Amino acid sequence: MGAATDTGQAGASAELIFSGDELLRGDTLNTNQLYLGERLLDLGIFTTHALCVTDDLRALVEAIRSSLGRRPAVLVLSGGLGPTEDDLTREAVAEALDRPLEHREELLEMINARFLARGLPMGESNRKQAFIPRGATAIPLTGTAPGFYTQHGETLLVALPGVPWELKQMWEETVEPLMHTALERQGEQHTQSVRRIRTFGIGESMLAEMLAGFDWHDPQATIGTRAHLDGVTIIVRGQAAPQGQRKLDTVQTRILEIVGEHAYSTHGEDLEWLVGGMLRRAGLTVGVAESCTGGLVGKHLTDVPGSSDYFLGGVTAYDNRVKTAVLGVPAQMLVEHGAVSREVAAAMAEGACRLLGADCALSTTGVAGPAGGTDKKPVGLVYIGSVVRGVTQVERHQFPGEREHVRERAAFAALDLLRRRLLREVPA
Amino acid sequence: MGAATDTGQAGASAELIFSGDELLRGDTLNTNQLYLGERLLDLGIFTTHALCVTDDLRALVEAIRSSLGRRPAVLVLSGGLGPTEDDLTREAVAEALDRPLEHREELLEMINARFLARGLPMGESNRKQAFIPRGATAIPLTGTAPGFYTQHGETLLVALPGVPWELKQMWEETVEPLMHTALERQGEQHTQSVRRIRTFGIGESMLAEMLAGFDWHDPQATIGTRAHLDGVTIIVRGQAAPQGQRKLDTVQTRILEIVGEHAYSTHGEDLEWLVGGMLRRAGLTVGVAESCTGGLVGKHLTDVPGSSDYFLGGVTAYDNRVKTAVLGVPAQMLVEHGAVSREVAAAMAEGACRLLGADCALSTTGVAGPAGGTDKKPVGLVYIGSVVRGVTQVERHQFPGEREHVRERAAFAALDLLRRRLLREVPA
Repeated sequence: MGAATDTGQAGASAELIFSGDELLRGDTLNTNQLYLGERLLDLGIFTTHALCVTDDLRALVEAIRSSLGRRPAVLVLSGGLGPTEDDLTREAVAEALDRPLEHREELLEMINARFLARGLPMGESNRKQAFIPRGATAIPLTGTAPGFYTQHGETLLVALPGVPWELKQMWEETVEPLMHTALERQGEQHTQSVRRIRTFGIGESMLAEMLAGFDWHDPQATIGTRAHLDGVTIIVRGQAAPQGQRKLDTVQTRILEIVGEHAYSTHGEDLEWLVGGMLRRAGLTVGVAESCTGGLVGKHLTDVPGSSDYFLGGVTAYDNRVKTAVLGVPAQMLVEHGAVSREVAAAMAEGACRLLGADCALSTTGVAGPAGGTDKKPVGLVYIGSVVRGVTQVERHQFPGEREHVRERAAFAALDLLRRRLLREVPA
Repeated sequence: MGAATDTGQAGASAELIFSGDELLRGDTLNTNQLYLGERLLDLGIFTTHALCVTDDLRALVEAIRSSLGRRPAVLVLSGGLGPTEDDLTREAVAEALDRPLEHREELLEMINARFLARGLPMGESNRKQAFIPRGATAIPLTGTAPGFYTQHGETLLVALPGVPWELKQMWEETVEPLMHTALERQGEQHTQSVRRIRTFGIGESMLAEMLAGFDWHDPQATIGTRAHLDGVTIIVRGQAAPQGQRKLDTVQTRILEIVGEHAYSTHGEDLEWLVGGMLRRAGLTVGVAESCTGGLVGKHLTDVPGSSDYFLGGVTAYDNRVKTAVLGVPAQMLVEHGAVSREVAAAMAEGACRLLGADCALSTTGVAGPAGGTDKKPVGLVYIGSVVRGVTQVERHQFPGEREHVRERAAFAALDLLRRRLLREVPA
């Protein structure tokens, strides 16, 4: 996980309570927890407890009371706002805060309007969605359920739907602005700013060595890293105030100097979007010739809407006969060097350019495993070929991990090779 | 989510406590919770609380005490067993149970042996991993950290590492057998059996209608459904005892009759493994010609180790010139019917067979979106072509959702079309 990003733990804290038995039955991964944990940290608020609790009124009331007893700055509840018997969040909050539920005419109208818009009659059970605890402020519904928030002692209690996109929209449109205002009013300068530098081609431990000159625990610029299949992200957190931003600018500039061309984005772009943008700006087309990745490089390139502007297509040459018959790899080369070789990677990329009439091409040939490895060509060995405007280059990689990881890493390494070549060889 | 699978809630209950700030910072999805929730439910044990708590001794002790106060049959702790300062699970359990930590020589030897095997000296900090609470039984380390379990009143407390594969291995090798024994001794017949029927091509609401003749809440055969991109799984839970198994057999047989060829597996196989096995047994080869899926069908087929036995390769024909020049789709056909058409899907699949010398082929052409849709050819429209031994068939699909979903659904629909054709046309 790299160095701990423990800034904010001394500051304001948050707790999360999720209701919904699907989270406890092993049916659904709790992506809301991931989302809220990260968004809160971006505000400088560290989550200390995140609880999934069964759809039971007593259990839910007890959970809310325990949490309020620890006096977090924020308590976010998610789920349990629908119209069914299992939806108990309204009742549980009212009981835990010892306040009655109140009917809100404007909520009922909103719910009614939503049904009308779909040409459906509102169900009797939906009426209960117009009740919220006394003193609470309603959050207009983004989907099917309204949320609400209310202050209790030191704690801002927020209740949001469990449907991820509804939760996300309410969080970004209503809750986050509210919290910015609250944090500013407290003048505690908790409000944080975050920089994310995405890199490819350097592992977390190597990055830690390269960045050893920084104080990773500096509260003005706390550094952490996070590893993904498409590289390692360097996360720098500091204060949002103007002098904090200047500090973050300085640190980011120094990190970019050290990391060099391994850094590919500071604005969140994925590798395939970035490469796509470079190709489009340069007016170049690209094709692929894949062996061990089986179509994954093409899949990633076409994940981007509008990629038909520069992506022409590709050949997946799993069988050697396809390498020779379709891509024109010489049969003698396969015999002499083997399919997993620098020479074949180069010939595949060149063959793709010819066949597809593309300006650039990428190729992959390797041993994805679990079987098929030898001492000289072990599982994880992948050659990645590239052609940019008639010039061929091949890189050799040795990827760790299982079949799926080797294939994903190889596909991203291919995209990154094209990125670096376009950066160097094509004037911006 | 389909109907609730709430069997077991009246029976034994479990609680889970996860330590590790990476879960609270939004860095890591809690896949251990998904895994444990499902495995416990398979034993007839319903999880009522799952808590992620910050790496703080006081918070952890308080969480363990609260949980024990609710007297669950099982309390599983995950994480916090490593050698660092943040690893507090041993100390927290000892304090919550009011028992001292004891040194176990055999654990130290195991840890030492693991370092020796890698030719590394054991670190001083690893010594603390040989301590567990008095009265607890050690679970031999599967990776880097030993686990332990101990009985406290009615509760079996189990401490496992946070690394998913280490946790999984300990659970399956040590904890599950232990719980089977305990459940049998109690003679409570809580032990459950589960049947999972995977289907493709029918939505959850349609399945609910087709299976309306069953009592979904029958404790002897509780029915639930779960939707994925590769179809809907029907989950039937009942008792593990012999008469319970007979009941489950009966229900499963009736469901399979109703669902017909939409059901593709009852033993957990993925669609691509299943299709791969059918091709291998029939001695047939396959190739692909992809447009809107951009390589994803080939990617799924080659997710299976050893798929080179039957997968020859493919052509991704994103650009129309590749459709004509490489796959031999007549240019006139593209003008007359458009690239997204029944005719072009057929010609692409036939072209792939010819070019690759394959016995079977699949093709995709559609509008993945978000742009490019028209009234006659809206976003989500996909034609899927197939050739099996010289006979071509095309299916028309209209998939809902975003670009990524349309592409994934189209790829799985292609695999499922091949499965159904092989089932009908190739003698087993």
